[in-house]
Amino acid sequence: MADILRVGVAGLGTVGASVVRLLQRQREALAARTGREIRLVGVSSRDKAKDRGVDLSGAAFFDDPAALAASQSIDLFVELIGGAEGAARKSVETALAHGRSVVTANKALLAAHGAELAALAEEKHAALAFEASVAGGIPIVKTLREGLAGNSIERVYGVLNGTCNYILSRMELERLSFSDCLTEAQRLGYAEADPTFDIGGFDTAHKLAILASLAFGTRIAPEAVDIEGIEHVTLADIDAAAELGFRIKLLGVAQRTAQGIEQRVHPTMVRKTTSIAQVMGVTNAVTIDADAVHELTLVGPGAGGDATASAVVADIADIARGVRSAPFGLPSASLRPCERTPVQRHEGGYYIRLSVPDVPGAFAAIATRMAERKISLESIMQHGARAAGRSAEAPVGVILITHATTELMVREALDAILADGTIAEPAQVIRIERE
Amino acid sequence: MADILRVGVAGLGTVGASVVRLLQRQREALAARTGREIRLVGVSSRDKAKDRGVDLSGAAFFDDPAALAASQSIDLFVELIGGAEGAARKSVETALAHGRSVVTANKALLAAHGAELAALAEEKHAALAFEASVAGGIPIVKTLREGLAGNSIERVYGVLNGTCNYILSRMELERLSFSDCLTEAQRLGYAEADPTFDIGGFDTAHKLAILASLAFGTRIAPEAVDIEGIEHVTLADIDAAAELGFRIKLLGVAQRTAQGIEQRVHPTMVRKTTSIAQVMGVTNAVTIDADAVHELTLVGPGAGGDATASAVVADIADIARGVRSAPFGLPSASLRPCERTPVQRHEGGYYIRLSVPDVPGAFAAIATRMAERKISLESIMQHGARAAGRSAEAPVGVILITHATTELMVREALDAILADGTIAEPAQVIRIERE
Repeated sequence: MADILRVGVAGLGTVGASVVRLLQRQREALAARTGREIRLVGVSSRDKAKDRGVDLSGAAFFDDPAALAASQSIDLFVELIGGAEGAARKSVETALAHGRSVVTANKALLAAHGAELAALAEEKHAALAFEASVAGGIPIVKTLREGLAGNSIERVYGVLNGTCNYILSRMELERLSFSDCLTEAQRLGYAEADPTFDIGGFDTAHKLAILASLAFGTRIAPEAVDIEGIEHVTLADIDAAAELGFRIKLLGVAQRTAQGIEQRVHPTMVRKTTSIAQVMGVTNAVTIDADAVHELTLVGPGAGGDATASAVVADIADIARGVRSAPFGLPSASLRPCERTPVQRHEGGYYIRLSVPDVPGAFAAIATRMAERKISLESIMQHGARAAGRSAEAPVGVILITHATTELMVREALDAILADGTIAEPAQVIRIERE
Repeated sequence: MADILRVGVAGLGTVGASVVRLLQRQREALAARTGREIRLVGVSSRDKAKDRGVDLSGAAFFDDPAALAASQSIDLFVELIGGAEGAARKSVETALAHGRSVVTANKALLAAHGAELAALAEEKHAALAFEASVAGGIPIVKTLREGLAGNSIERVYGVLNGTCNYILSRMELERLSFSDCLTEAQRLGYAEADPTFDIGGFDTAHKLAILASLAFGTRIAPEAVDIEGIEHVTLADIDAAAELGFRIKLLGVAQRTAQGIEQRVHPTMVRKTTSIAQVMGVTNAVTIDADAVHELTLVGPGAGGDATASAVVADIADIARGVRSAPFGLPSASLRPCERTPVQRHEGGYYIRLSVPDVPGAFAAIATRMAERKISLESIMQHGARAAGRSAEAPVGVILITHATTELMVREALDAILADGTIAEPAQVIRIERE
């Protein structure tokens, strides 16, 4: 049997404690699989005294995670501190600079500094592995980097944030408002007290940027992601989607286009029959379109201590077996820049919900403005038809589904319709993702 | 850049031609990803002259695949001949005996000789990779062997045969009989002229045996798989399943039980809401239940030249990068024997369809026999209720759904009911797979 792999773990929150437990529980199996003993020799956390229900007796305690990262007592540094800067960044840089391999679950760190860290790892012949940073227990990083190595990838998209998917699922299944569902998610611990990072789409954007880099061989570029959250999705939209055979999901989508790599996060209409549409609650899913494999979908837990630890431990096992992949699939000098593709160029179908006064000519005025931009309509649906006792001019909901067009044309047409006075308030626009 | 990896491909059918095309199309990307040029230097096939629409100008032609396998001109032998014996077996053994790594898509060969071939590869320090042998383009071998290395796997199950899934999907969607769907599948090339291997469940059993070995660290044991095909599934079963919220799939299931590893292939009731149930047509899907990741599902193309070639090329790329995993995840000496678990011990819920004369006391007689074996019923549904003009004693369809019990109890109860004369013909029994 080869040398022992000596592991240091910094950060003993839910994931860190699960990693320690898993390494202990699977000690024999991991040794058999990797040919080496994997031994926890050091830990670091903010509170040394806290009882985490795990046995840390064999591990030295370090107050400073960077000191653990620099320690000659370890071969591999596991960073589970979190955050793009501070202790996480410093300790990962320290470990790599000392030529020690790093496993991290830290998407924010990778989004901000992934390309530089990959270059440092390469220079020092160390591994930098981050399966746990995207979609929790789903082995999507390995799949993109290794499992689809023979493919040219066209698109990668998915449900990458459990909080948002939980809220959207609850809205549909329980017919609750966005804010009611958010409150419930906070009560259950599925959403933070300040939920902006999740519901605003920023968490999804970090994960998407990692996937895009792996899929397209580009330098990670979170600043090139166009981001829209789920705050403005209403029950009316969810109902209309259901009636039309769609479901609304917050998707991260990265796609090869003639203009470059398009990266976007937004509420999206997906056909109910697709694998992605079936994913409810806190589950995550990622679909890859590629030239050889066509379509591949992975569905699994996007968060949780054990599921995330599963990904961390798989990375540790790969490193124990001596696997050294380029972190983003290609040598970092070969990663191409990822330019921001203007979202105005986005091509696809659109769902548009308008509040239209129920007066003669309103439909015609809308259709004319659409036709002027060569937008053709797949369907028009009127919601909330005139009821007894209702004022004749009270607005009714009108849903348009367009054939493929560009974002620019849609925005121009809606601006014109608003300027005409045909509608009193801006339209709700949700992109439709093709299958 | 490291040495060129020189590849020989034996078998130039649909998959072989796709592999050659993919290696050529992705030449630069593969070199960037693996750090080596991957070069096709030799091929072998039955018909040298046949035009396959691929450029073979740089590759030497070998009439005998074993001669290609033995040739010093190659580093890696790709076996796409098929069959458990003959040229496939001989050439793979030859390549490994010469210390050359092997990539194969041949499930029959692995099912019959996988353990011996793995031991030979290990002895010679060569790789033996077979991602393409199970579920086509889905990276399930890599996921089980590497991506879930930190997990103890409880169950792996899936839709592993596109022909069967196509037929069952068509029966449901088009309301056609089994034989009509089979004829159509044959016309479309989804089923062989002799379809026994697919519809009888044998193809699924080969694939399941490979997955079970990877999941449980056992020696591959196709002879320990309990096999039942889809020939006896009727439209009446499919309708009843739909009414009860189920769908019928031919599943391969390998499961850790107190008695050992249970491996079985049979038509199965799965709840419509599960990921597996959503998989229609020729698509494949595999779900893994494991202690850390809980549930993970992979969905993708189970066959087809390009999708299978995607898996073959991923294996080639891993070998180019120097990855040497134990073929079945563990050193072959550590693989434990896989005893056949008697299916009488299988525990679960059951769907039972009986044809019962519509006479007083029939229900009571059935319920009594069930109760004697402590089988409790979740639901009882009567189908084809008495219609005007119908004879009072004409049989009606009765569907029972049981709570968890054992196969033995169910078989005993049904034998007793048949012996009592309560039913005139044997019952249809379909196992329910828990979520």
